[in-house]
Amino acid sequence: MAVELYRHTLEHPRGRAEILIGAGVLGTAAEHLGEWLAGGKLFVVSSPRLRRLHDGALDALRGLAADAVELEVPDGEEAKSVEHAHRLWDEMLATGGKRDSRLVTFGGGSVGDLGGFVAGCFLRGIEYVQVPTTLLAQVDAAVGGKTGVDLAGGKNTVGLFHHPAWVLSDTALLATLPVAELRSGLVEVVKMAALLDPPLFDRVEADLDALLAADAEVLAPVVAAAAAAKCGVVERDPEEGDLRRVLNFGHTLGHAIEGALGYSGLRHGEAVAYGMLFAVRLAERRGLDPEFGARLKRLLARFDLPALPALDPEELLSFAARDKKATEKGLVWVLPASRPGEPFGHFQMTADVTREEAVGLLADFLADPLG
Amino acid sequence: MAVELYRHTLEHPRGRAEILIGAGVLGTAAEHLGEWLAGGKLFVVSSPRLRRLHDGALDALRGLAADAVELEVPDGEEAKSVEHAHRLWDEMLATGGKRDSRLVTFGGGSVGDLGGFVAGCFLRGIEYVQVPTTLLAQVDAAVGGKTGVDLAGGKNTVGLFHHPAWVLSDTALLATLPVAELRSGLVEVVKMAALLDPPLFDRVEADLDALLAADAEVLAPVVAAAAAAKCGVVERDPEEGDLRRVLNFGHTLGHAIEGALGYSGLRHGEAVAYGMLFAVRLAERRGLDPEFGARLKRLLARFDLPALPALDPEELLSFAARDKKATEKGLVWVLPASRPGEPFGHFQMTADVTREEAVGLLADFLADPLG
Repeated sequence: MAVELYRHTLEHPRGRAEILIGAGVLGTAAEHLGEWLAGGKLFVVSSPRLRRLHDGALDALRGLAADAVELEVPDGEEAKSVEHAHRLWDEMLATGGKRDSRLVTFGGGSVGDLGGFVAGCFLRGIEYVQVPTTLLAQVDAAVGGKTGVDLAGGKNTVGLFHHPAWVLSDTALLATLPVAELRSGLVEVVKMAALLDPPLFDRVEADLDALLAADAEVLAPVVAAAAAAKCGVVERDPEEGDLRRVLNFGHTLGHAIEGALGYSGLRHGEAVAYGMLFAVRLAERRGLDPEFGARLKRLLARFDLPALPALDPEELLSFAARDKKATEKGLVWVLPASRPGEPFGHFQMTADVTREEAVGLLADFLADPLG
Repeated sequence: MAVELYRHTLEHPRGRAEILIGAGVLGTAAEHLGEWLAGGKLFVVSSPRLRRLHDGALDALRGLAADAVELEVPDGEEAKSVEHAHRLWDEMLATGGKRDSRLVTFGGGSVGDLGGFVAGCFLRGIEYVQVPTTLLAQVDAAVGGKTGVDLAGGKNTVGLFHHPAWVLSDTALLATLPVAELRSGLVEVVKMAALLDPPLFDRVEADLDALLAADAEVLAPVVAAAAAAKCGVVERDPEEGDLRRVLNFGHTLGHAIEGALGYSGLRHGEAVAYGMLFAVRLAERRGLDPEFGARLKRLLARFDLPALPALDPEELLSFAARDKKATEKGLVWVLPASRPGEPFGHFQMTADVTREEAVGLLADFLADPLG
């Protein structure tokens, strides 16, 4: 089968990450990763469920290595613990892992975050490949080198920047995802498009139905454009100084919502959608962005988001203040700040929203988030 | 008190490390670190024993921060576990640690390795300062950005490269060290001098008695020269490709001796001294280096090394093969390869020593290591 391949190279301070995107790209892995994997040991980090669901999908990669060692992790956030990382390191050492061994993560963002962290710290860092199996991971988590696990006190509080040598995003894998999971991933696409890529925003508006139906051919260029947009930001700001923080649009409140709900009930992208809507509200109140908000609201209304459970504004802000993105100087908000006629790509970061202002506006917002 | 200050800047891919060395340099910290620490939270990683032993030594640093949080770790290798790292991360998060918080390690190489790892992974990396309290840590461990902890299966098997923003090496702290600990540190100085700095080798030969008596003024320039020599290698090879591996001179067998002895009985530097002597033997057998070995043997003979316990050559090589510096291609040895008239700085790395050759030579060596 001929695969329409989208390729992007991310340059970072310690090298480069080659990102290959397409419907069926995993089947062509030998063409690209043959030399990189040849003759060495390969650790395969995945869950039993994913191995069953996509049986055979990694066989081409396994076949390139001299020896493949399977490492099992649970599905979802449960995988992201120091204990699981510790167990994997022990298993890798016991099965003969060396500095020139390789690792592949096969799963959603959680498996990728854990696997990247494990690769980044094993013998002070071995090279690895991300094979993301969710839309969210393909457009966001697998690109940019962020890795990490959770502490009891907060998500992603332990980790490091460790870029994969390769990212293989096969959009054919997305056909097995529930629609809510696709929707969650598309929210990050919308975020990236709003910040950085007006034609991508147009495309999502036009193709939303096919995208939510997991059409692999329609998804491929959208995943590629979102990943390329993220690469552009990461290249200019590899370790999240101020510039990269613009990608936190929607995440200041989004993370707080997830925390207040105990990370259940809403998916990440759904919480971020509400976070973006609140940022729009905050921007409108400050006289910023007279036009962009309405268009974003219209698009997100088509996502059929699950209703926001009852939440307390004070509690939400306390969760936001504990997020690792807070600095000692306080909460940072990313707000759309477009000028008339330039609806995209003009955002500002501000730390000068008072707690009183945020609480008051949050109370109104929670009563009618899409209003 | 006027402090004679030696200063060296290490440039690395993610920034720079400022290394300040001198007898009494901790007392002058405010002059240098004032801006870096001002107004933030400072985590102090140390052991109760070191805090008692050097009571007040860190007060100038603590006074610069808005808030100092004390984090306790055990002395020695016991500190270097995933469990202790996990506990420190939990404590840092619970006490309000943020991305712009700072950390100081105060102790020997183990405290520095653990503290650097903890700093490197907390919220994907916070800046830190190394304050090494042993000679070994001042000349080696604190310089170069290597951090890490141990797994049950091997030392330093989990970690990352995370350079401190500052290294403060106060040679006045070394007065409390046992002579065996000074000797262990001086072995690393000898290694660095042999590899990279002939005048430093001369100086150690001339000043050995004052150095072993912990004369802080005599130690300062020696520590500074050894640290500078290491910086030169690290700058050319920040993440231990082949070039930096030359610093493993004496470590292939040295690590194996430590492992075979269960990390007790001999100190690191003592094991490395035997490792260097064996490398000389291996080099002589191959026709390399006709002159350098004799001079190194004469100097190390003055160290009054503790006798090498009975060890089995086969077992030693099995330990060496498990070391993280082994690659999938086999053991790498660093051998002196000087040309006549150029006794220093000519080393070669080789992976083509057969197990049979090494076992045979090891049996002879173990019977008479200084012969």
